[in-house]
Amino acid sequence: MSEAPALPELPAPIPHQAVSFADGLALDCGIRLARHTVAYRAYGRLNAQASNAILVCHALTGDQYVAETHPLTGREGWWSTVVGPGRPLDTDRYFVLCANVLGGCMGSTGPTSPREEPAGAERGVPEPWGIDFPAVTIRDMVRAQKRLVDHLGIRRLFAVVGGSMGGMQALEWAASYPKAVFAAIPIAAASFHSAQNIAFHEVGRQAIFADPDWMGGQYWRAGKVPARGLAVARMAAHITYLSEAALTRKFGRRLRGGQGSSLFEDMFEVESYLRHQGSSFVRRFDANSYLTITRAMDYFDLAADHGGDLAAAFAETKTRFCLVSFSSDWLFPTAQSRAVARALNRAAANVSFVEIETDKGHDAFLLDEPDFHRTLAGFLAGCAEHARLP
Amino acid sequence: MSEAPALPELPAPIPHQAVSFADGLALDCGIRLARHTVAYRAYGRLNAQASNAILVCHALTGDQYVAETHPLTGREGWWSTVVGPGRPLDTDRYFVLCANVLGGCMGSTGPTSPREEPAGAERGVPEPWGIDFPAVTIRDMVRAQKRLVDHLGIRRLFAVVGGSMGGMQALEWAASYPKAVFAAIPIAAASFHSAQNIAFHEVGRQAIFADPDWMGGQYWRAGKVPARGLAVARMAAHITYLSEAALTRKFGRRLRGGQGSSLFEDMFEVESYLRHQGSSFVRRFDANSYLTITRAMDYFDLAADHGGDLAAAFAETKTRFCLVSFSSDWLFPTAQSRAVARALNRAAANVSFVEIETDKGHDAFLLDEPDFHRTLAGFLAGCAEHARLP
Repeated sequence: MSEAPALPELPAPIPHQAVSFADGLALDCGIRLARHTVAYRAYGRLNAQASNAILVCHALTGDQYVAETHPLTGREGWWSTVVGPGRPLDTDRYFVLCANVLGGCMGSTGPTSPREEPAGAERGVPEPWGIDFPAVTIRDMVRAQKRLVDHLGIRRLFAVVGGSMGGMQALEWAASYPKAVFAAIPIAAASFHSAQNIAFHEVGRQAIFADPDWMGGQYWRAGKVPARGLAVARMAAHITYLSEAALTRKFGRRLRGGQGSSLFEDMFEVESYLRHQGSSFVRRFDANSYLTITRAMDYFDLAADHGGDLAAAFAETKTRFCLVSFSSDWLFPTAQSRAVARALNRAAANVSFVEIETDKGHDAFLLDEPDFHRTLAGFLAGCAEHARLP
Repeated sequence: MSEAPALPELPAPIPHQAVSFADGLALDCGIRLARHTVAYRAYGRLNAQASNAILVCHALTGDQYVAETHPLTGREGWWSTVVGPGRPLDTDRYFVLCANVLGGCMGSTGPTSPREEPAGAERGVPEPWGIDFPAVTIRDMVRAQKRLVDHLGIRRLFAVVGGSMGGMQALEWAASYPKAVFAAIPIAAASFHSAQNIAFHEVGRQAIFADPDWMGGQYWRAGKVPARGLAVARMAAHITYLSEAALTRKFGRRLRGGQGSSLFEDMFEVESYLRHQGSSFVRRFDANSYLTITRAMDYFDLAADHGGDLAAAFAETKTRFCLVSFSSDWLFPTAQSRAVARALNRAAANVSFVEIETDKGHDAFLLDEPDFHRTLAGFLAGCAEHARLP
């Protein structure tokens, strides 16, 4: 027998708040996880009836640190403008909950989690799953979140809210657990991932595969990270999150000069910005998680899961929907939200649809957009009245 | 002294038709090439007055093999539908000429060309320029083409035509040599490269830099090619050449199945297509050329070269312009062609502007678009009448 490989040097684990389940999680791919962990954060107070819970679903590269300092980056929570006392998701009134998605890398079970030993295998220090982590779907992510919600004693969520991939999860929640969702707010989302979006994800994946430090997905064994490939993936994705107008407004063709150097030694500001986006991302995100989650988004097709008819996904739903799109979002354009609204109408659902005028592109759901924030607050207030929320 | 590096194993050179100039070419970056070669192809017959020449300018990854079998790929010329007997650029009537751009890799001087020896250096077998090839601009490309045109005895081009980067060159021709251009047809072009376009190019460059076979641009020394990085660059760029509608129509979410395998072993057709685009590209294109040419596009800003006023670039021009854009082109959107048209109007130029309705995106200029082809033929026929072309 050859020498056992050196144990990987993993970063010191962050003590994420989490709950573990040992009763198995059956995934769409056919594999059953014997146990799984859901890491989460919550803000506000669950009322005695457990009727004021809002589940926030995060996007591809987001996490559960919605409204507090991020433990890795030290930056503000990604939705601090939306979640907090007096904010649209008012923590004085609502109990706001967010779980790291299954397949993620911030405490929920994913490629960086210890691998389950095959039955009969010799017990030792378990290695991470890495690239062998089972493929997961958006529905699997929602299944894992449902365990958490049940565990917390919440029989019905007052609302499920999310942007981008978070919006896909909000739709999936309403389709999979209609009685557990009073209101759903899918933002800048779609009922399926388009060919163009799959194509951009594929470019990112190929960039990761092309990195020599990728090592067939076993990079952690060598204490390496496919940082360059992951950075390129992030850069490509980042362009799609912004509108052309936003890029032009932010950077235009401005040069970030060297020392009065020659024409070609200068860099455009937009290049410098993208390089920074790429290099800061790799310090907080795992490449195998990125592959796992992009794949889950690509496979999302809610109509296909219901015989090709999106309306069938919402048959007899009592959930109140508020769909939000942004006029300059070309990754999840308004037309895709409108298609969801039409399907909901065919299902005789209670649905509002708001297109926010903005030039900030897909990223607008993360930014300070007063019209958007008023829409969130207003829709929730109306729902609270209908739900007779105290 | 250390041992001399092994001579690179270069592919067997293709005998491109070319003309070399030994009288020096001063570049915008301040460097002067002591000698340079312009590889070209021509179709049709130059008339006795040399008044029927149309110069076709190729795009980023194009070359001079416009209307014949490509010597490397064995595929049809990239504009065979446009150039030929009875076609819009009718070779029974016009002499159609196309030169590989300066910085290219199909016979014109570029990074794969033998490096010029510094004065006093010991003479030996010269190595290629590689990454040390001087930075070139669109104007430098046009300067090199002007040498060829002069060499062929053509004092005035009947027309300069080009799509994408070829359209940038057509604009630069009209600005730099107004008396040498009777008509100009910039197609799917712009007077500057936008922040978004620079950003996409930067992703491609970073993908090349991230490839271990890039070796700081000296890959040819080791007989290597940064194939994976260049393929990722091509894939990212390719998405921008197509519209979302075209991608959806061509591929949608169709899966290209394995052997009835599980969900995640399948690949989307669009992924397979992109991988093919990436891998076939690296067999015909040099990475250092790709870097050189993308940089030239990024730096293109015709107004900036004329005191910030695009109209000043065309002051007192007598050239007849026909600007063409495609409705679904999001890389060089119609608004950018319209801005050029407005500047030309301010310069009191003779200008037509046509937006072709199509869902094929930027690539439409390479595809079978009857309205576009009728526009080309009709505009050229009108110009031929005004020029009293026999």
